[in-house]
Amino acid sequence: MQYFPAALQELSDQFARLPGIGGKTAQRLAFYVLSLPKEEAQSFADAIVKAKEAVHTCPVCQNLTDREICSICDDDTRDQGLICVVAEPKDAIAMERSREFNGVYHVLHGVISPLNHVTQDDIRVKELLRRVGSGTVREVIMATNPDTEGEATAMYISRLLRPMEVKVTRLAYGVPVGSQLEYADEVTLSRALEGRQEM
Amino acid sequence: MQYFPAALQELSDQFARLPGIGGKTAQRLAFYVLSLPKEEAQSFADAIVKAKEAVHTCPVCQNLTDREICSICDDDTRDQGLICVVAEPKDAIAMERSREFNGVYHVLHGVISPLNHVTQDDIRVKELLRRVGSGTVREVIMATNPDTEGEATAMYISRLLRPMEVKVTRLAYGVPVGSQLEYADEVTLSRALEGRQEM
Repeated sequence: MQYFPAALQELSDQFARLPGIGGKTAQRLAFYVLSLPKEEAQSFADAIVKAKEAVHTCPVCQNLTDREICSICDDDTRDQGLICVVAEPKDAIAMERSREFNGVYHVLHGVISPLNHVTQDDIRVKELLRRVGSGTVREVIMATNPDTEGEATAMYISRLLRPMEVKVTRLAYGVPVGSQLEYADEVTLSRALEGRQEM
Repeated sequence: MQYFPAALQELSDQFARLPGIGGKTAQRLAFYVLSLPKEEAQSFADAIVKAKEAVHTCPVCQNLTDREICSICDDDTRDQGLICVVAEPKDAIAMERSREFNGVYHVLHGVISPLNHVTQDDIRVKELLRRVGSGTVREVIMATNPDTEGEATAMYISRLLRPMEVKVTRLAYGVPVGSQLEYADEVTLSRALEGRQEM
């Protein structure tokens, strides 16, 4: 039995596909969208299309951007010889919030995770090696999450970088073990930056 | 400082306006939409616009529909003389799931709630009175939520209907089927006792 008008059911199904959104919540969100003025629903739809169209990865650091090269890679005042390697764009944002870091980023878009069938070829390691290989990089700071997979990924990459005559460091354990960078507070993050150690 | 590309920030803001979606969740959803193939993001956007365009309220029962008159009001096999009054479309769906009700609905789109500045003029009471006034209605079942505002709304409407020579009933109170007496609250238990039926 079809309880909903088809178009409403379709919208509800679309919401239900989002991570962490169950059937009931999806229904509630669909009802909410229906209650919006037409222009607001339209601008919601437009935001989806526009974000998808405008946002891509920066060819240098792989972070998300809507410019040709992202604003950080394109910034002369930032130290292009100092690369902070993070797993996800949101981690770069967390680092930026600390206001302590004046280098540039490299976003891996994932960590090596055999259990989830993510190998070193699925994350942007090659791009990092190419950047470091160009010879302008002085130091690489590994800032993957301080959990098992983040550690393993950092270890793997640092081993690849070792022959390349670049200093490789790791965020200090000021960040609580087992937590996620995204939720770390600014002070902890700055301490972690200050205390970084060679690996 | 702008951490996100503008288009991504805009999408995240749009998600954050949805009820029950906080800033962090909105960010996560926006990232997820970015990770979708382009066609899927487009069909999500289309679903929003289409639902908003296609779905409106049935002129008879005020329920949501994408047809001129909703499929229940338009169904000859349903008892058009028996109206079940509910607060929200989702409540009509809950009733339908019981497969026990063969009448039609009237959706109020809210309950009277002075604290939230919702008065009798903000919900579809007039439309109900007009329907009952047409003379074809035999019985009105009040099925608003069994909470304070739902009760008050049911009382208010039943008083308006009293002079109209129509039977007005209320959903029975009692212990939910499959629940445990141990956890039932006192008020529910006393109502269940009052309404006890011969077996």
